[in-house]
Amino acid sequence: MKIELAESYGFCFGVKRAIKIAEENRNSATYGPLIHNANEIDRLKNDFNVALSENLDSFRAGDTAVIRTHGIPKQELSTLNERNVNVIDATCPYVTKPQQICEEMSAQGYDIVIFGDESHPEIKGVKSYAIGNVFVVNSPSEIDGLNLREKVATVAQTTRKIEEYQQIVGKLMADHKEVRVFNTICNATFDNQDAVRDLAQKADVMIVIGGKNSSNTKQLHSIAKEYCQDSYHIESQNDLQSEWFSEKEFCGISAGASTPDWIIDDVISKIKSLTNS
Amino acid sequence: MKIELAESYGFCFGVKRAIKIAEENRNSATYGPLIHNANEIDRLKNDFNVALSENLDSFRAGDTAVIRTHGIPKQELSTLNERNVNVIDATCPYVTKPQQICEEMSAQGYDIVIFGDESHPEIKGVKSYAIGNVFVVNSPSEIDGLNLREKVATVAQTTRKIEEYQQIVGKLMADHKEVRVFNTICNATFDNQDAVRDLAQKADVMIVIGGKNSSNTKQLHSIAKEYCQDSYHIESQNDLQSEWFSEKEFCGISAGASTPDWIIDDVISKIKSLTNS
Repeated sequence: MKIELAESYGFCFGVKRAIKIAEENRNSATYGPLIHNANEIDRLKNDFNVALSENLDSFRAGDTAVIRTHGIPKQELSTLNERNVNVIDATCPYVTKPQQICEEMSAQGYDIVIFGDESHPEIKGVKSYAIGNVFVVNSPSEIDGLNLREKVATVAQTTRKIEEYQQIVGKLMADHKEVRVFNTICNATFDNQDAVRDLAQKADVMIVIGGKNSSNTKQLHSIAKEYCQDSYHIESQNDLQSEWFSEKEFCGISAGASTPDWIIDDVISKIKSLTNS
Repeated sequence: MKIELAESYGFCFGVKRAIKIAEENRNSATYGPLIHNANEIDRLKNDFNVALSENLDSFRAGDTAVIRTHGIPKQELSTLNERNVNVIDATCPYVTKPQQICEEMSAQGYDIVIFGDESHPEIKGVKSYAIGNVFVVNSPSEIDGLNLREKVATVAQTTRKIEEYQQIVGKLMADHKEVRVFNTICNATFDNQDAVRDLAQKADVMIVIGGKNSSNTKQLHSIAKEYCQDSYHIESQNDLQSEWFSEKEFCGISAGASTPDWIIDDVISKIKSLTNS
């Protein structure tokens, strides 16, 4: 069976940067998972003694707290600083940007619409920077019925699909005199999405590797599924099932922005052994 | 044959306002046609001695120049003021708005994209207020290949269709970090367009009345044509052809924002006499 990797996949700039920061800060702890990949987090713990704490109160004066790539709410960042915790910011700069936009635009009197998942840490963080009216929508249909004023500014979760964001803006501009559109979907997301779209049109089975709670991996899987019915989202080689490859000739592979190469390599080896290719 | 007028049609706020201004300024002249309706312009000449001059140099100190609903280029307005011409501004306030936006946004360093017809007086006027990079596109496809910088602001001709403007914004936001979208399509345009869309779905022949160079009438005709194959754009009852109504049962009628009621009445009378209804 032919196995082909997407032209663009896996670790993005922000994830690479955050891992480098974590590796440079041995004996620290991240507040929440640094990236959405449990295997890589285990590696940082084992090789660099970078722990993970989900509890803000576990950080005391003098501790080093590494801020996850997705960022954290403004109030929590203030709390860490007030406690004299040594804060090392590994927030992806592409996430810092929508945080700043939210803060600036709401200060200028715009109502804010965030396209994203309200329960995702990135969006919890971005939303916390708005000081006025702010609404989070997870799909274009959720725009209908929002009680927005005349001037609206909008940002998107870095990992969302541009097509849905365009629909959201289309709806907003039909009803509002001014819409300030900030395209905060990151280029790595675009590149990985374009590449998975191309590959899924050729493949008859698609494997998309990434954490189950990784937003960008879920988007990649959803795009793959549009073009290739037999598309699967897995976290590691342990999730592979041999029947997926029965009577298939072309397996396409992509991986989310928080998926390290060593996991991808393991998956490819396992597929080869399952298919004797 | 059943004859039905669209729920919303004809004279808009800006046209009514401009005609009132013209009527209040007997013995003046408009610089360019006040509205895109030759019959109404003849009426203003005959009943109120409001002349029409296409020549800027014909206006001298002490003359009264009425500015057309579509506005005029900034430089020409300055020329009239410098010559001590008595300038009476009948520019539609919904056209003044995109002029101001162009001026402000280009002063703030945004590249300007105007969705409209470069040869239309409204757009010539709006464009003249941009002081930096400015591009006029007449359709979504013309966005491709524009040499735009990162920050873009966009306005639309007041009479364009929202669907095409949404496509233009969709293309812009895919390639630019910030797009400031000003929806300058006027509500009267929306209302007349919605109404012609509803009516054309029920009628088997549609008559859209308005000047041949009237942008908003052309848009109404184009929408009518989408839903009713036998849709005709006429200027007056003289353009009607009896064969259009042969074997038809339901005639829908709409009219552009510069079409006076007396022309619409004449058209309805003529259709009734042609169809013995």
